Amino acid sequence: MSADGFAALPKPPYYAVIFSSQRNGRDEPGYYATAARMIELAQRQPGYLGVESTRGADGFGITVAYWESEEAISAWRRHAEHAAAREQGRSDWYDHFELRVAKVERAYGWDRQAP
Amino acid sequence: MSADGFAALPKPPYYAVIFSSQRNGRDEPGYYATAARMIELAQRQPGYLGVESTRGADGFGITVAYWESEEAISAWRRHAEHAAAREQGRSDWYDHFELRVAKVERAYGWDRQAP
Repeated sequence: MSADGFAALPKPPYYAVIFSSQRNGRDEPGYYATAARMIELAQRQPGYLGVESTRGADGFGITVAYWESEEAISAWRRHAEHAAAREQGRSDWYDHFELRVAKVERAYGWDRQAP
Repeated sequence: MSADGFAALPKPPYYAVIFSSQRNGRDEPGYYATAARMIELAQRQPGYLGVESTRGADGFGITVAYWESEEAISAWRRHAEHAAAREQGRSDWYDHFELRVAKVERAYGWDRQAP
């Protein structure tokens, strides 16, 4: 994640993993430590492109991670520490989540500061 | 958007429009009124499937709208009131946004309450 929240991405095509989740509000320190660790680990994976993430005061959050390929997504899914974090997400942190894997076909951006 | 924040979607394939934005913090009433109106209008469009949206205290937000087809996305883009809202977004409400159009290929969910 860049300092301003936006991922700097190459031109499409690439893949997006859209993760929507409802936190149960418990164990904020443990949750945030693991979330930060997962981003740190993901950044070191082959094919990682970037991530954008936000969560409202109601505990509903959306994280979109961007990857070069389906193969990169599968490899990250098999990472042992990531698998353990997913398991803890089910047992301790989330009430509900939905995950969608999508191929980004086109993209467009706008920045007030852009020349 | 369903009461709990999650969109109830059919099985893939379908399309996702991932809209990431940084609010400038100005005109909260006008922004929220228009955001609510856009969801109300989008729900009446052919091919609309659902939306999930959240924004953190820092003003960074992610909205993902789901559509049956590229044609449905294009038709919504041409809606006059939507076009006017996008123009006002640039002039009044956002510092930066990124929009990505993606084809959802697979999806998976988990709910603590599920039987």
